[in-house]
Amino acid sequence: MRARPVLYSYFRSSCSWRVRIALALKGIDYETIPINLVKDGGQQFSEEFQTLNPMKQVPTLKIDGITIGQSLAIVEYLEETRPTPRLLPQDPKKKAIVRMISDLIASGIQPLQNLSVLKQVGQENQLPWAQGAITSGFNALEQILQSTAGKYCVGDEVSMADVCLVPQVANAERFKVDLSHYPTISHINKTLLALEAFQVSHPCRQPDTPAELRA
Amino acid sequence: MRARPVLYSYFRSSCSWRVRIALALKGIDYETIPINLVKDGGQQFSEEFQTLNPMKQVPTLKIDGITIGQSLAIVEYLEETRPTPRLLPQDPKKKAIVRMISDLIASGIQPLQNLSVLKQVGQENQLPWAQGAITSGFNALEQILQSTAGKYCVGDEVSMADVCLVPQVANAERFKVDLSHYPTISHINKTLLALEAFQVSHPCRQPDTPAELRA
Repeated sequence: MRARPVLYSYFRSSCSWRVRIALALKGIDYETIPINLVKDGGQQFSEEFQTLNPMKQVPTLKIDGITIGQSLAIVEYLEETRPTPRLLPQDPKKKAIVRMISDLIASGIQPLQNLSVLKQVGQENQLPWAQGAITSGFNALEQILQSTAGKYCVGDEVSMADVCLVPQVANAERFKVDLSHYPTISHINKTLLALEAFQVSHPCRQPDTPAELRA
Repeated sequence: MRARPVLYSYFRSSCSWRVRIALALKGIDYETIPINLVKDGGQQFSEEFQTLNPMKQVPTLKIDGITIGQSLAIVEYLEETRPTPRLLPQDPKKKAIVRMISDLIASGIQPLQNLSVLKQVGQENQLPWAQGAITSGFNALEQILQSTAGKYCVGDEVSMADVCLVPQVANAERFKVDLSHYPTISHINKTLLALEAFQVSHPCRQPDTPAELRA
């Protein structure tokens, strides 16, 4: 019998949320170990955690005897080893589109507005900086989704692209980006949020969610 | 017969170089269309190019009737459709490590030091900003590679991780990062640069390389 995977996660981390969605979609039972990115100067900087993830970032997943960092590498591993339900289309061309959208968010938007970068740009610049990064990415994403979307980001099957989309929209809301400019993004996001896997993995329902933010 | 793929590329773009290496390793003949990221205020902002890539970024590959942006999505597509020689190990655990290292560079380092971000931090902050992003990523990468590397990043086969490593080391050199702190990274980089695929794809040997930078 396989041991239960252990996810090092922070309730508010959008990259952790991606992995929580994938685990929920695939029905994988796991244990959460919360890593608070702000408390105690950031628990990700502890010596113990750095041994697990030298980048000092969540998520990190212990599974099948290995430790994996980087959310998309984790999702791809889950897809390889627990293929049902699939998060990547079988058709290579559609699969490329799913990966392109995922990478657009994971390399093109999120890294520019994450906590460690915002710390560096200074308090008064944080909001416009984050808004700029998200707006520029969403302008592109809206245009792409207009030709790839069905019910979800790529056609009518939930995919890795959707796993990336919902947490990024939550960040956009947190940084007060006007989402009325992005009708396709907003519509897909709303459809996805109605699915159970997106609800149980939501930042407002994690073991480390502070009481005042629980829903 | 398949039409020749078309790569929209900039000689100095490290993400374009990743794709050029993968194409060279797999022996795929292609046409280059240079997109100069600085000339004319940036040719990536032209209406024509934005239609191909709404993120206004290189690389972009036209292949098999589709257009793909995001370098790792492109490399994964090449791997699916032109599997020889393989750039991802067959073993799912090793594959996860290759993807983790690739994503560490593609999401955790490069986006923080790319041209559009450096423009935003202001002229006098550019060098320390880029050095900080690369140093922080390389500290983690050096530690990871010490346990994963053989001749190359993961064992003794060239992989997608190597495709990401070499262009990132070139960026580190450009931003004057002291590489003596990273003996494993430096050694693997040197070994890889001796391979033909890394040489023909090098920024100093592209159709759009300015005469004074050619080698």
